[in-house]
Amino acid sequence: MGRIRTGIYGATGYTGLELARLLSAHPEVELVFATSESLAGKNLQSTWPQAPDIELVAAQQAPLETVQQVFLCLPHTQAAPAAAQALAQNIKVVDLSADLRLNDPGVYQQWYHAPHPAPHLLPVPYGLPELGRERLLQARCIANPGCYATAVQLGLAPLLAAGLVNADQPIVVDAKSGVTGAGRTPKQQILFGEVTGNLSPYNIGRSHRHLAEIEQELKRFGYQGEQLVFVPHLLPVDRGILAAHYIPISQPERVRAELAAWYAPEALVKVLPEGELATLRHVVHTPLAVISVTTVMPGLAIVMVALDNLLKGAASQAVQNFNLMWDLPETTGLLAKPPIVS
Amino acid sequence: MGRIRTGIYGATGYTGLELARLLSAHPEVELVFATSESLAGKNLQSTWPQAPDIELVAAQQAPLETVQQVFLCLPHTQAAPAAAQALAQNIKVVDLSADLRLNDPGVYQQWYHAPHPAPHLLPVPYGLPELGRERLLQARCIANPGCYATAVQLGLAPLLAAGLVNADQPIVVDAKSGVTGAGRTPKQQILFGEVTGNLSPYNIGRSHRHLAEIEQELKRFGYQGEQLVFVPHLLPVDRGILAAHYIPISQPERVRAELAAWYAPEALVKVLPEGELATLRHVVHTPLAVISVTTVMPGLAIVMVALDNLLKGAASQAVQNFNLMWDLPETTGLLAKPPIVS
Amino acid sequence: MGRIRTGIYGATGYTGLELARLLSAHPEVELVFATSESLAGKNLQSTWPQAPDIELVAAQQAPLETVQQVFLCLPHTQAAPAAAQALAQNIKVVDLSADLRLNDPGVYQQWYHAPHPAPHLLPVPYGLPELGRERLLQARCIANPGCYATAVQLGLAPLLAAGLVNADQPIVVDAKSGVTGAGRTPKQQILFGEVTGNLSPYNIGRSHRHLAEIEQELKRFGYQGEQLVFVPHLLPVDRGILAAHYIPISQPERVRAELAAWYAPEALVKVLPEGELATLRHVVHTPLAVISVTTVMPGLAIVMVALDNLLKGAASQAVQNFNLMWDLPETTGLLAKPPIVS
Amino acid sequence: MGRIRTGIYGATGYTGLELARLLSAHPEVELVFATSESLAGKNLQSTWPQAPDIELVAAQQAPLETVQQVFLCLPHTQAAPAAAQALAQNIKVVDLSADLRLNDPGVYQQWYHAPHPAPHLLPVPYGLPELGRERLLQARCIANPGCYATAVQLGLAPLLAAGLVNADQPIVVDAKSGVTGAGRTPKQQILFGEVTGNLSPYNIGRSHRHLAEIEQELKRFGYQGEQLVFVPHLLPVDRGILAAHYIPISQPERVRAELAAWYAPEALVKVLPEGELATLRHVVHTPLAVISVTTVMPGLAIVMVALDNLLKGAASQAVQNFNLMWDLPETTGLLAKPPIVS
Repeated sequence: MGRIRTGIYGATGYTGLELARLLSAHPEVELVFATSESLAGKNLQSTWPQAPDIELVAAQQAPLETVQQVFLCLPHTQAAPAAAQALAQNIKVVDLSADLRLNDPGVYQQWYHAPHPAPHLLPVPYGLPELGRERLLQARCIANPGCYATAVQLGLAPLLAAGLVNADQPIVVDAKSGVTGAGRTPKQQILFGEVTGNLSPYNIGRSHRHLAEIEQELKRFGYQGEQLVFVPHLLPVDRGILAAHYIPISQPERVRAELAAWYAPEALVKVLPEGELATLRHVVHTPLAVISVTTVMPGLAIVMVALDNLLKGAASQAVQNFNLMWDLPETTGLLAKPPIVS
Repeated sequence: MGRIRTGIYGATGYTGLELARLLSAHPEVELVFATSESLAGKNLQSTWPQAPDIELVAAQQAPLETVQQVFLCLPHTQAAPAAAQALAQNIKVVDLSADLRLNDPGVYQQWYHAPHPAPHLLPVPYGLPELGRERLLQARCIANPGCYATAVQLGLAPLLAAGLVNADQPIVVDAKSGVTGAGRTPKQQILFGEVTGNLSPYNIGRSHRHLAEIEQELKRFGYQGEQLVFVPHLLPVDRGILAAHYIPISQPERVRAELAAWYAPEALVKVLPEGELATLRHVVHTPLAVISVTTVMPGLAIVMVALDNLLKGAASQAVQNFNLMWDLPETTGLLAKPPIVS
Repeated sequence: MGRIRTGIYGATGYTGLELARLLSAHPEVELVFATSESLAGKNLQSTWPQAPDIELVAAQQAPLETVQQVFLCLPHTQAAPAAAQALAQNIKVVDLSADLRLNDPGVYQQWYHAPHPAPHLLPVPYGLPELGRERLLQARCIANPGCYATAVQLGLAPLLAAGLVNADQPIVVDAKSGVTGAGRTPKQQILFGEVTGNLSPYNIGRSHRHLAEIEQELKRFGYQGEQLVFVPHLLPVDRGILAAHYIPISQPERVRAELAAWYAPEALVKVLPEGELATLRHVVHTPLAVISVTTVMPGLAIVMVALDNLLKGAASQAVQNFNLMWDLPETTGLLAKPPIVS
Repeated sequence: MGRIRTGIYGATGYTGLELARLLSAHPEVELVFATSESLAGKNLQSTWPQAPDIELVAAQQAPLETVQQVFLCLPHTQAAPAAAQALAQNIKVVDLSADLRLNDPGVYQQWYHAPHPAPHLLPVPYGLPELGRERLLQARCIANPGCYATAVQLGLAPLLAAGLVNADQPIVVDAKSGVTGAGRTPKQQILFGEVTGNLSPYNIGRSHRHLAEIEQELKRFGYQGEQLVFVPHLLPVDRGILAAHYIPISQPERVRAELAAWYAPEALVKVLPEGELATLRHVVHTPLAVISVTTVMPGLAIVMVALDNLLKGAASQAVQNFNLMWDLPETTGLLAKPPIVS
């Protein structure tokens, strides 16, 4: 078998660029096409000089029938139809949009204010391998998690599964994200002049869209619903998420051991030794998530999760999922950085 | 009466520089001297070009006997002896160090790992005017609060006073500070190359020194002790603090009204309207603190407090205290920015 | 005479915001209206929390007939018609756009790719007071210079006037600007994720639009044309310009004296002492320009000019011009910073 | 033959960290030791979380006799004695300090204000492969160039060699560097609070130490001396150099062709197509230098050179030199990024 012929839909956003970089260096991938509507006919390097050397095509012109795999970095509502089209031709799909993450089209409509564009595809396996990879092996289609959603679930799932979390008090997650998490489409609030020197919370409480997928997935681990308070902030950095979890817990002294045991077999999630706190510096430009645990009083655990929103929060997790779909070792193409020049 | 003759001890740190700028523009102040050991004989502008035009002197050479007021921006353990010396000559003192904030020398030793340098001066009124200015009026000596300590107390005191806070669950404060809060003495962790692109928690839980003064002062409002979990982070910005308070509360719907009522008479603390969240952009380079309130579920209130660590968290609060000591209107020299050029 | 009743057209860009802040604190100004098409009906603080507290109106609804002065912070081609309308009602105008800077409508068309929108208004006095304020006194209409244009002219005009510049070699100006110089309209190249960590030259050589006004004005001082090479760069800072002038010169040892003599009477332009180099830190958030001179070999002078692009490069220079128009002391409202809270 | 056993002296500075990362991923290298005086006994990850997992030793304890190659990332005056010690044991050396770059110990003393610590080692081949790699093949000891020095020489050498540069006018290089170029030893001027929002020129004209090595080496290409004006600036970014060369030239239209021809065979230096300007974004985190050429008037060429000061300006160039010393393909370990996790 030769390399897996692969296409990217939506290659010129930050996630698409990062994915193009990873795939062009992946030893088992041949990157066949990358789409862009606004830059069709130009080279991907024209919009990001370190990107791989590939000519962009409009989605309609992409030679879909010649590939075995597509990655969708399209806006929500546009991704699901593209997934349906690919799946109909027996082409595997990793969708990095929100379209296929929620099992219930009604919930989708409630959070995304649009009817679900392809409800017949649901449910689709949710691709957070460290929290359950059996359903991802040889999957035809995977919904790649949101960046915040990955961070929050990594911190909570093993503790919920262990029955340590008190259900009658709020779980607070105070999260901070780099600006690339807000996409590359020009908007005033992500201009340099607005972000530099600032820190701004937004959509705090129970209003951020990632809550829907977080709560759906955590239920598999015993989460009972509506307990989570999620407080995201926009940081003046380009990439990285640090999420502080404040967890009401009956036996805080067990938290480290449970997390350490859960992630011990994992190559891409590390629990830091006692006394070391997770920072963005641990993870930016890597496919890793790191976790620190601090216990300060009975009834509370502080769990910090750091990851790169464009990598473990998007593109490198998509590659993990791809590897699982194709029975490749899960970290193929991730533990050595890709070539820098094209 | 002419202008109040004033000196600054320790003018070349970030707080000293900001204070020098404010005092040189204060209509009732004559800035007589500013000290520095390492730069004695040089102009203050040699270390910061926008600083006022004043020649630095070594502390020993400062004409202490010619002034009526001193501000101490010295390291802890050095400030209290300087305070004692000034007070002995009937010169008023605002101490911006930690030396005079804790009433109990034993608590000081526990947190600062040194015997208290002047226990006979204790207790000294704690200068957070919005939480009690009667003891500051005409005071001879005031202990200026820490920057984080100001933010945390502004968010909690009115709610404790109203009896709204549940005493049996943790109060979590997830705080983020600009780098000038760590001082201007060179240290590796505050180099540009370390801080840019990073976000790092430090001294989290119950280990940050400001906890001592916060808990001491909050007891005046009914705080019962050891309930506070304080989680500071170093932000890649030069100035500003944003502190998210997660408060276990019986009647969250009363939180906004209590805070709004408490701060309604205040010129320098603003409670934002519903739907607007506090950000650094509201406060940097101003003497203001702003507060936002969000209630998302029964039993929890989210209170965000933003302030400029060098101003409301240090130098402009020192000027408020100075104004109170001398029976001047509290915002004198603060609500119009000082001249920019010397 | 009461305060001068004043309106701002285009208050929500970075220049408009800065101007609103200055004018709301100006002791001789009453700020009557501020316009915005997209935010009409909202408060200016809704788009920038430290802005003055004023409700925005659409330009068509602005009570033009009730004011004595307008400032135009509109896009080019839109400003000149607004100027014409105001002048027709005997209302004075400072135009911060490029519309009225070039005397020759043909040159305007060449650089701005549109016919001049109001050629009958030309020529308009060019408002760079330190290079000629006589034509500005009591003027009815002033064209406020561009930010780069101010920096370049301040460094060159006195040397050209002294006959020191060799006309047969290029003058190179390598200039670096903060991102607010590119405006507040969302564009991909000014997103935080593009600018942070980057430095990018653009429009280098003889292609930047400010060349036209620079060369037009420098001719008054003996510039002979087409000698200037202008190389702007986008810096990862929000504000400030630093322009390094490399000037072919016959007697470099006279450069400092000529510049110092020219600017000695000026309150807002400072020539730094030998050995001190101009930096952004000297000028950001101030109405000042600072200049340093370095001579390293026969035939070349290095002149560095620093200013804040939003102040001396735009809004505070507009206030200088306004003061001159109304026979006020030129630095009124500039040498004490405006109130911070509204 | 097995992997080449290698040690790093001075692994905890920015250059040492980058080199450790590259070497730990180099397919032909076994990293045997890494030294630090202050952190001996600790893991390298304790000072930089993404560093390779290796325990630091004090230089005296390093098992020098067990290695075949050392890299010296020591301060100047300390590196040359370490080089001498290694060479005496027949161990190859790449010295990243300034100690071995200047052929004349008298010139060293003049610029570094100390007697040369090991004059008997001089001259040592200067390791800028694209400007002459024959003397580097199988060399025992190589002096790795300075970061600015690499950028300046790459832009000028081919043009000097082609006889295009006019010798009677200044060559101006206006260069801008990220802060890691100033090292990791704490100093006030590289604190985050000083650098953010600022741009500051320093050591401008003929006073920067890199001038000495630049002029020494350029003489090999026909440079006649003292014609270069070098104007470095400190940028608020962590890494990257952009150097604008303003070159007096007789036939500017030949510049692009000469540079393109010179670098056509090179894998790590790229001349950009007409219309594309070099930026930091092209090069940071890569071993590349990129060059753009702009000609705007007779007699002047603008050549921009961008590189990562820690890579092509230090660590990756050191690996190029190492590869040449050992007859390995020059880009071994450079064109695929090293593993991210240890």
